[in-house]
Amino acid sequence: MSGVRIETDSFGPIEVPADRYWGAQTQRSLQNFRIGGERMPAPLVRALGIQKRASAVANMRLGALDSALGDAITAAADAVIDGTLADHFPLVVWQTGSGTQSNMNANEVIANRAIEALGGTLGSKTPIHPNDHVNMGQSSNDSFPTAMHIAAAEQIVHHLVPALEKLRAALAAKADEFRDIVKIGRTHLQDATPLTLGQEFSGYAMQIAYGIERVRSSLPQLYRLAQGGTAVGTGLNAQIGFAEAFAEEVAAFTGLPFVTAENKFEALATHDSLVDAHGHLNTLAVSLMKIANDLRLLGSGPRSGIGELSLPENEPGSSIMPGKVNPTQSEAMTMVCAQVMGNHTTVTVAGATGHFELNVFKPVIAFNVLQSIRLLGDAAVSLTDNCVVGIEANRERIAQLVGDSLMLVTALNPHIGYDNAAKIAKKAHKEGTGLKQAGLALGLLTEEQFDAWVRPESMVGPG
Amino acid sequence: MSGVRIETDSFGPIEVPADRYWGAQTQRSLQNFRIGGERMPAPLVRALGIQKRASAVANMRLGALDSALGDAITAAADAVIDGTLADHFPLVVWQTGSGTQSNMNANEVIANRAIEALGGTLGSKTPIHPNDHVNMGQSSNDSFPTAMHIAAAEQIVHHLVPALEKLRAALAAKADEFRDIVKIGRTHLQDATPLTLGQEFSGYAMQIAYGIERVRSSLPQLYRLAQGGTAVGTGLNAQIGFAEAFAEEVAAFTGLPFVTAENKFEALATHDSLVDAHGHLNTLAVSLMKIANDLRLLGSGPRSGIGELSLPENEPGSSIMPGKVNPTQSEAMTMVCAQVMGNHTTVTVAGATGHFELNVFKPVIAFNVLQSIRLLGDAAVSLTDNCVVGIEANRERIAQLVGDSLMLVTALNPHIGYDNAAKIAKKAHKEGTGLKQAGLALGLLTEEQFDAWVRPESMVGPG
Amino acid sequence: MSGVRIETDSFGPIEVPADRYWGAQTQRSLQNFRIGGERMPAPLVRALGIQKRASAVANMRLGALDSALGDAITAAADAVIDGTLADHFPLVVWQTGSGTQSNMNANEVIANRAIEALGGTLGSKTPIHPNDHVNMGQSSNDSFPTAMHIAAAEQIVHHLVPALEKLRAALAAKADEFRDIVKIGRTHLQDATPLTLGQEFSGYAMQIAYGIERVRSSLPQLYRLAQGGTAVGTGLNAQIGFAEAFAEEVAAFTGLPFVTAENKFEALATHDSLVDAHGHLNTLAVSLMKIANDLRLLGSGPRSGIGELSLPENEPGSSIMPGKVNPTQSEAMTMVCAQVMGNHTTVTVAGATGHFELNVFKPVIAFNVLQSIRLLGDAAVSLTDNCVVGIEANRERIAQLVGDSLMLVTALNPHIGYDNAAKIAKKAHKEGTGLKQAGLALGLLTEEQFDAWVRPESMVGPG
Amino acid sequence: MSGVRIETDSFGPIEVPADRYWGAQTQRSLQNFRIGGERMPAPLVRALGIQKRASAVANMRLGALDSALGDAITAAADAVIDGTLADHFPLVVWQTGSGTQSNMNANEVIANRAIEALGGTLGSKTPIHPNDHVNMGQSSNDSFPTAMHIAAAEQIVHHLVPALEKLRAALAAKADEFRDIVKIGRTHLQDATPLTLGQEFSGYAMQIAYGIERVRSSLPQLYRLAQGGTAVGTGLNAQIGFAEAFAEEVAAFTGLPFVTAENKFEALATHDSLVDAHGHLNTLAVSLMKIANDLRLLGSGPRSGIGELSLPENEPGSSIMPGKVNPTQSEAMTMVCAQVMGNHTTVTVAGATGHFELNVFKPVIAFNVLQSIRLLGDAAVSLTDNCVVGIEANRERIAQLVGDSLMLVTALNPHIGYDNAAKIAKKAHKEGTGLKQAGLALGLLTEEQFDAWVRPESMVGPG
Repeated sequence: MSGVRIETDSFGPIEVPADRYWGAQTQRSLQNFRIGGERMPAPLVRALGIQKRASAVANMRLGALDSALGDAITAAADAVIDGTLADHFPLVVWQTGSGTQSNMNANEVIANRAIEALGGTLGSKTPIHPNDHVNMGQSSNDSFPTAMHIAAAEQIVHHLVPALEKLRAALAAKADEFRDIVKIGRTHLQDATPLTLGQEFSGYAMQIAYGIERVRSSLPQLYRLAQGGTAVGTGLNAQIGFAEAFAEEVAAFTGLPFVTAENKFEALATHDSLVDAHGHLNTLAVSLMKIANDLRLLGSGPRSGIGELSLPENEPGSSIMPGKVNPTQSEAMTMVCAQVMGNHTTVTVAGATGHFELNVFKPVIAFNVLQSIRLLGDAAVSLTDNCVVGIEANRERIAQLVGDSLMLVTALNPHIGYDNAAKIAKKAHKEGTGLKQAGLALGLLTEEQFDAWVRPESMVGPG
Repeated sequence: MSGVRIETDSFGPIEVPADRYWGAQTQRSLQNFRIGGERMPAPLVRALGIQKRASAVANMRLGALDSALGDAITAAADAVIDGTLADHFPLVVWQTGSGTQSNMNANEVIANRAIEALGGTLGSKTPIHPNDHVNMGQSSNDSFPTAMHIAAAEQIVHHLVPALEKLRAALAAKADEFRDIVKIGRTHLQDATPLTLGQEFSGYAMQIAYGIERVRSSLPQLYRLAQGGTAVGTGLNAQIGFAEAFAEEVAAFTGLPFVTAENKFEALATHDSLVDAHGHLNTLAVSLMKIANDLRLLGSGPRSGIGELSLPENEPGSSIMPGKVNPTQSEAMTMVCAQVMGNHTTVTVAGATGHFELNVFKPVIAFNVLQSIRLLGDAAVSLTDNCVVGIEANRERIAQLVGDSLMLVTALNPHIGYDNAAKIAKKAHKEGTGLKQAGLALGLLTEEQFDAWVRPESMVGPG
Repeated sequence: MSGVRIETDSFGPIEVPADRYWGAQTQRSLQNFRIGGERMPAPLVRALGIQKRASAVANMRLGALDSALGDAITAAADAVIDGTLADHFPLVVWQTGSGTQSNMNANEVIANRAIEALGGTLGSKTPIHPNDHVNMGQSSNDSFPTAMHIAAAEQIVHHLVPALEKLRAALAAKADEFRDIVKIGRTHLQDATPLTLGQEFSGYAMQIAYGIERVRSSLPQLYRLAQGGTAVGTGLNAQIGFAEAFAEEVAAFTGLPFVTAENKFEALATHDSLVDAHGHLNTLAVSLMKIANDLRLLGSGPRSGIGELSLPENEPGSSIMPGKVNPTQSEAMTMVCAQVMGNHTTVTVAGATGHFELNVFKPVIAFNVLQSIRLLGDAAVSLTDNCVVGIEANRERIAQLVGDSLMLVTALNPHIGYDNAAKIAKKAHKEGTGLKQAGLALGLLTEEQFDAWVRPESMVGPG
Repeated sequence: MSGVRIETDSFGPIEVPADRYWGAQTQRSLQNFRIGGERMPAPLVRALGIQKRASAVANMRLGALDSALGDAITAAADAVIDGTLADHFPLVVWQTGSGTQSNMNANEVIANRAIEALGGTLGSKTPIHPNDHVNMGQSSNDSFPTAMHIAAAEQIVHHLVPALEKLRAALAAKADEFRDIVKIGRTHLQDATPLTLGQEFSGYAMQIAYGIERVRSSLPQLYRLAQGGTAVGTGLNAQIGFAEAFAEEVAAFTGLPFVTAENKFEALATHDSLVDAHGHLNTLAVSLMKIANDLRLLGSGPRSGIGELSLPENEPGSSIMPGKVNPTQSEAMTMVCAQVMGNHTTVTVAGATGHFELNVFKPVIAFNVLQSIRLLGDAAVSLTDNCVVGIEANRERIAQLVGDSLMLVTALNPHIGYDNAAKIAKKAHKEGTGLKQAGLALGLLTEEQFDAWVRPESMVGPG
């Protein structure tokens, strides 16, 4: 036995590995695009399975596809969906910009798998033809963007949002735990008026809560599916009603409210929706960068930094400095954030460069969007589990720092005016003394007044 | 008369121009930041006027500010709002990252203007003190981000959205005008199946319609105001109820539904909302880049390009090639889009780099957000007026191109299968003939069948 | 047999797979950073092998390391360098920002491999200790950036530059092949004065030639190695002379002129050199985007586009449109370019966010730089082999287009002036005639003059 | 008197302000591009003056231009160069992408100014025609990119490099001043082994020194001028020898070694050189962001931060917190850096989107490159003068922090091994004691050994 079989397409015959379901067009792509090693992401392969499954079901429902063939196709598609056939999707991202080769990969694998199930010969295209049956009423140009939307929406709903909810809840729990710890505030990295550590963490929790709202707000546009537009958006060769039946089937299968896009020309020629959705991922990266930076700065030390927080110690931090422990979860998170910001530039450039009836940066957009979702979700869980839940407040240090602060002087503004308060602060700063001492020396208030007016615990709210 | 007067702050006395209302802190900023020439944008100065006005009104309502002083402050603020005092706001963007110096610029100008109106001496801080009265219950840290949100929201509502509506309407009108013109589609820049020119333009109109939805969707987060958080988000030195009263006043004055932010720590320490809003501007740039590129490609020629559209001729195009006319409105638009994409990187980096209780990239964020809004709005109007409304379809050229197309072969798929259809297309391409001739020569169909099946005007929809 | 063994570090014991050489710190990283799936790139693992090898050699030369131990270390390092131990480097990019865990991965794998070779017990750290011997005189903080520079330089020299040379040569060959084909020029996508197709391709070849110069110009800064700085740049615990001996050894081993960095503080705390080198990769992406776009536009059609070039047909282009062929190599290339541009944003953000003595975005910088190099090199080869070498000029089409052009009128400027020439072009354009006809009708020249002055083949140079 | 006069171009007559030299094409641009307010930068207008001057001189030298006319043109060009005619260049950046309208603005202003000087009538184009004489042998397509290169090179040489030199010198002086101050190092924001404050500053100085090298390394490619390529790169209508004579004249006039570009097709169709040069500006932004961040972190406090440095106090820092002083120069600098990073995205997108013989994003590229140069230079000077030169070390604070550090334990590695050293550090950290106490308690060394081995001042170098 040779280890290969012959498959054919309109370019002629070509050898493919005997133990793989893929056909001629997948094989040509493998040979013509030896670029990098980044394969089409698993959630996208799964989504192509869903897309082929729903197409077969819709075509059967509309009477266009014989149910014997259709059932074989859906069974094969199920094996794509559940990952069984992962090894049969070898193509990289850097291929044709329409994703046609990955769409054909799905068509070929499902056709051969179904042929096999029906007792036929692999590569014969009988009784199941990859184009005429598996791809019936479809084009790569509507199928691939449909799969992109399905994959992105599923990943946002099932991976990213739960991860963010977990992080938000952990931050909110810390906000509650730390609600009575009065600490010095810092603006411009300089000492400012006090707040509670709980208030500080409430800001982080709010950022993530808004982040969840933002990524959720991108779902309605991702639920709009291009399917039914076929080659250029007109729907040529698709049955009337196919677009709607298809979207219903995807909605039923996934449990997510997918609908057919109202304008298929927009849906094929642009990926504005994915660009826009990635804008919210970019905002999330911005939020998480800020939070992760704050955590490591507040935990800096142990002796020569700010040292208000103790972050969990998870591993040795240095190959040369014994006993060193570092804020590694913050570092992983901020690296992820930098990656997502860069991915946003990629998605922006790719989204802006479509022409006429098709944007041909589809694989790179899918790759970056799905990577950003994956990384942000994973990193949010990792940060939560390996850092946030274990954060402890160093109450002694915190109390010492807020007690020394010159910016408590702000509480005097309503009583003695900004200019007089400034004189006190400047004198104390210059002479290295406390505010009370400076204020008394300047004769601007009495000790009783100072004690009544300057109380950090009363400075953490209005009024 | 000397041309200067003396103003003072906690750093001491300093000379300022006698004919300007600004005070010591503005003057110090002028001297300490001789960087570039980009001034704080006019909509932001206006918003600072609104912010000072609403603060005075709220403080009066709460009984914290005497109405004689408060009325003088609001009158002076009105002159900031309407632009009368534009020459009194000389500061550049590249100053302190909190915008404190521009907030003090507003405090100083309003104080001196009000002092003058009340018969006082400029620089005396009597009876109106820039900090104690104009800035009463406020900090730059809540005032400046409040002004950023007011300015961005006003500009989106009053400048950008109307401009986009105008462009969308013009594109939709063209979609209607061109609804019966069947033309060749192009995917991968290669000939594809036909669609109507109206369908093509409907995609553009849809992009802008979605763009309007997107920028509108960012308004609720911009309507959330930081005011009331004062220095670090706690609200120290603000009256209880000030935040709410202030937001009500701004809403009443602007006619836009501003509210007080639910978490002031988030509102001072981050600009996630502006970063996110700019994400929608970035999407808009992506959409407009695609549309403007398509227009110039479809209008390329006049003889050696695609030539399906005639764009309006507005000016000579070349200093050396007589008679040349260029798609200059597309060029201006795509340059604007490139700028907005870059602004998005700036806003992203700036938004991600806050620390603790304050993000100190406020002026650069405001500058870029407002520039993007201004440019996108202006360019949308310019493209509409000077290009879109005057576009004409070259019907003869369009008909000729669609008639020659080999991709009409796609209509044969349901009748003779993809593989046979491919044989016809390849033979016609190789031999430079028409599809019918190739199909007949291959014996794959009859002339009657071909004529019945291959009709471009029937290929612009499903079924 | 249990399948696991116990390894220890300063955090205590931990189970690791028995069939892997890695130790406790690698294992902890695996468990603490379940983020994404992007592993440390192979060229970086190889570079860590080179780094450990050169360290052992230098320490032996300086008398710090016993040669029996040193030889065992170098032998184990060789197995890292040649890829034999690839399965023993499981860590992802999203770990500690110093790369400490990957440095320890190398230390642990080499130590255990060497222990095994010397008949010791895995995990015993005897007679070879991962820190004291393999990491002798080193810190992750100098070792990891050293490996980053080695990997980037090797990949630029051995992968990227040869790929670019190949592309440049192919473009130059086409420039030569097409040197006599006079064609219409296009500016603003509009018809302009003629040039030869060879001249057009010479511009592409020049772009790549400059691109090669640019990436080469980044090598001297990459040749500067951080090794010898140890933890913070001071060189604590390294032997005097270690930095220099190490760099010599790396230079000898790689055949590339590595040197020790003149300032180790800069070399640990910043990655300005890699950021700057990636700037040249970004320029290359800009160049290649332009070239790839031009190729697909010039090859657009086959009947309704510009159609001046025929690009090689490598695979079927459409799952629905039979016979369609697309410029897929251009598409893969432009997707790669979009990725590289995004990577540049990532590298920029990461490079800008270091603090004090260490930049802790090292793994994400390495990942993106190496991905960009890999993708640009691979895509350049793919574009060359699968597209450029097979490009053919459609001479008939080219001749027709240039003959019809109105911009040949430019040749009349020196004879009749810009204003008169413009009148001719405008008349011909308006009436759809040729220039000669219009010129004669306007009485601005004679037929003999026209024929003498307007000759495309004479318009492709000065004078 | 009417306040307007009539000017004409190939589109017909148009009214222009009587007191302005510009003509019909400038006026049309003003009316057709009401977008934003960003005018063509002054250095570019100057460069257009230089370009027109050198063209006239070269054309006279080649005998193509009568010297009476040529002398009038050069005199008028001189008034453009020296800024006298600034008010006659009203056009914004958002115009045609070739910069044709600004090139014509220069042609028209110089023609009318020269006509006036020769006693002619404004707008008569006699005896000096804007196209036939001022633009003789030129196209916007070579003139405008030539001006872009002249402007960028002049600004780099005369503005940016001196500013960077000044900053570098100031940092180096501080490195020298602080060379004996031993301080704690920080990696991952955590305490690490010691170094001197001078060493830390030497890293900053090194970064800027490399930055100067990098921006200088971009000059050779900027010295290559497109002039002589005319419309599409062929040089049609330019005299043989014009390109070379022009470059010589520019070199002589500016004192910078400009040359004619070896390939004019590359020089018109791409701006790879400017993109690449901006890559070095981007690296500079990365470097300066790091330095400015370090300065504000090291100066954080005054009481609750790191507090190792005292930064100069230049102005009041807060409108609500009396006596507050902020690191405002760092903030202005980091905002500038964020802007430059965004400008790099703009320049990248713009550079990548050229087609065929011309890149039509010229004005936006020029605008961003020149803004980045201006801002980086200005901010470097401001940071130097208003911050760096006045930085003082807080020796007491520094000594206290380094003395407490647990990472001094690293000095024990060569004596007792990494694992034992780790035990000491961990014990001391856990119990809040010093290293010596922990080491003695563990019995791992004697007091004499500790005192001999752990000496911060001996830990700032190898060996």
